[in-house]
Amino acid sequence: MRSTELDHQMMARAITLAKQGRFTTSPNPNVGCVIAKNGEIVGEGLHFKAGEPHAEVHALRAAGENAKGATAYVTLEPCSHYGRTPPCSEALIKAGVARVVCAMQDPNPVVAGRGVKMLRDAGVEVEVGVMESDARALNKGFLKRMETGKPFVQLKLAASLDGQTALSNGESKWITSPQARRDVQAYRAQSCAIVSTCKTVIDDNASLNVRWSELPESTQAMYPESELRQPVRVILDRQQKLHHNLSLFQTSGNIEVVDPKSPYFQLNSTGQVDIPYVFDKLAEKLGIQHIWVEAGATLAASLIEQELVDELIVYLAPKLMGSDGRGLVHNLGLTSMQQAIDLEINDVRMVGPDIRITAKVIKNT
Amino acid sequence: MRSTELDHQMMARAITLAKQGRFTTSPNPNVGCVIAKNGEIVGEGLHFKAGEPHAEVHALRAAGENAKGATAYVTLEPCSHYGRTPPCSEALIKAGVARVVCAMQDPNPVVAGRGVKMLRDAGVEVEVGVMESDARALNKGFLKRMETGKPFVQLKLAASLDGQTALSNGESKWITSPQARRDVQAYRAQSCAIVSTCKTVIDDNASLNVRWSELPESTQAMYPESELRQPVRVILDRQQKLHHNLSLFQTSGNIEVVDPKSPYFQLNSTGQVDIPYVFDKLAEKLGIQHIWVEAGATLAASLIEQELVDELIVYLAPKLMGSDGRGLVHNLGLTSMQQAIDLEINDVRMVGPDIRITAKVIKNT
Repeated sequence: MRSTELDHQMMARAITLAKQGRFTTSPNPNVGCVIAKNGEIVGEGLHFKAGEPHAEVHALRAAGENAKGATAYVTLEPCSHYGRTPPCSEALIKAGVARVVCAMQDPNPVVAGRGVKMLRDAGVEVEVGVMESDARALNKGFLKRMETGKPFVQLKLAASLDGQTALSNGESKWITSPQARRDVQAYRAQSCAIVSTCKTVIDDNASLNVRWSELPESTQAMYPESELRQPVRVILDRQQKLHHNLSLFQTSGNIEVVDPKSPYFQLNSTGQVDIPYVFDKLAEKLGIQHIWVEAGATLAASLIEQELVDELIVYLAPKLMGSDGRGLVHNLGLTSMQQAIDLEINDVRMVGPDIRITAKVIKNT
Repeated sequence: MRSTELDHQMMARAITLAKQGRFTTSPNPNVGCVIAKNGEIVGEGLHFKAGEPHAEVHALRAAGENAKGATAYVTLEPCSHYGRTPPCSEALIKAGVARVVCAMQDPNPVVAGRGVKMLRDAGVEVEVGVMESDARALNKGFLKRMETGKPFVQLKLAASLDGQTALSNGESKWITSPQARRDVQAYRAQSCAIVSTCKTVIDDNASLNVRWSELPESTQAMYPESELRQPVRVILDRQQKLHHNLSLFQTSGNIEVVDPKSPYFQLNSTGQVDIPYVFDKLAEKLGIQHIWVEAGATLAASLIEQELVDELIVYLAPKLMGSDGRGLVHNLGLTSMQQAIDLEINDVRMVGPDIRITAKVIKNT
């Protein structure tokens, strides 16, 4: 009963299941599990929320007696430790599962191969690495924090097709469409923290929260409003300009103001807020693993130049605004084309009338 | 023997055939024809080049006796006049075709419904309008000239993802990839005229010709090198700056220098070259129906502001160059977002590592 094609089909289903948890599992990883026997799914499940059962437990419950002799497909190595729930490897063994296929090893140091070992020691056949890159994409934040101690950083940019983010007089409402702004709400809802600057908060009187009514319907279909999670809003405010009657402070959800009194505050050699320090501390102290940055061209350029951006999310609206507007990134002072910052486009799609581009910043080493 | 689905299938094939001629038919339209009997194709053909047989003739030749009682699918109304070839409507009647399905009526005043009438008068069943919008897309230049007397104008733009077309020092080689530049060659090869400015020709020592070896392989597969057609190169040169040792003049193909001595030259009220006049005269005197514009930000903005652009082709390279470079379009002096030039995105795709966006300029009326 070996079939690579079948393995891929089942793992693809497990990955689809895992994605359903992406608005609620943080700081836990997204995991999906499918239990199959004779080519048929006999049970499936996903991890929905920290403290609730892992994906394997849901799938085993659904499979019942059918788990005996079955194959379990899991998007992440089953855990081996007693956390808020007993180890899943043990549960799979007890249920009599004959074979376990994992998309990838769990980089969490408390697991890191021990789950696989526990299964193999009990005589269960284990395979690791089926659809690994798809599985990694499920948990960009979790994996980056586990592997480097740093959070995964997405930078949002929005401009007209000719790269302008505002008119010369500062007007920018609205360049992108309502659909793109709903899409941004979904990105906010998937992140652990939203990072911005006092300038953006003050100029736009931005709340930077997740508003249920503004989430795309496809996101609303993924979890109930009662599970809505507000990312921590982290506002860089070196000069302590924020004042308490801003919308930001009228909305629920945690706020970390990074001003000279903050434990996250440190200046770098150029007298600016030391952003790598802020990010590292957010990961260390708050378990922040996925950061969504919404700010102006100055912070954008600074993050890019400091190579702190893992993924750019660029919305381009079907408009031309002319070169006398405000640019997408700050002046970079390039004197030769070789100095341009190279990107790699990973995804391009329409979001309503706008184009959304997902790109990776290629390190200029 | 009626089947809408079958009609669509056959017309789709006829459209695919028509496309094969798009590098060679000008100033004639692209036309494809399929002759089908009992749901099977018994003959097909396309118009390849002015002076050579029309699509219907090729298809009838291939069908032979099988044309009797068959249905002919043609992407454009069969002609009714004696031109360089006898009328296709007559040929279809003589061959005993029972039914003719046309995607659209021919707007050419010498046809304009007469082909359909000739067929109907001879007792042939005729249907018009199957897949009309796809068929219209085959002949944007031909249709615009026939319907308005003006040529169809495509404007090429190329920039980094942040909308920069050059560094502040003017360096721009290369922003886009070799694949994008090959794609540009294919666009040039499809046009009747390439319009540019003396500044682009001098600064880049641009030849603005079609180079067979630089065409994409998919284009080379469409016609032999011996049929390579050089579009007329139309260079705006109000101040007579062009000199004869430029690459432009060392390459084969016609050149129209629009300087004060040119019949295409006229100044507008602001003392600039009157571009609508140039375009109209090119259509009238040279039968130019499809113009491809490659120039800098100044001409680009001017064409857009004068609402002369039917289609924008924008290449965005996966690079960031910073706001201190040169912008995609000139200053537009906007003071409110309502003044932004609205576009409608019709197509987005990857060309090598670059993004290619096809957009329509929405008239700001």
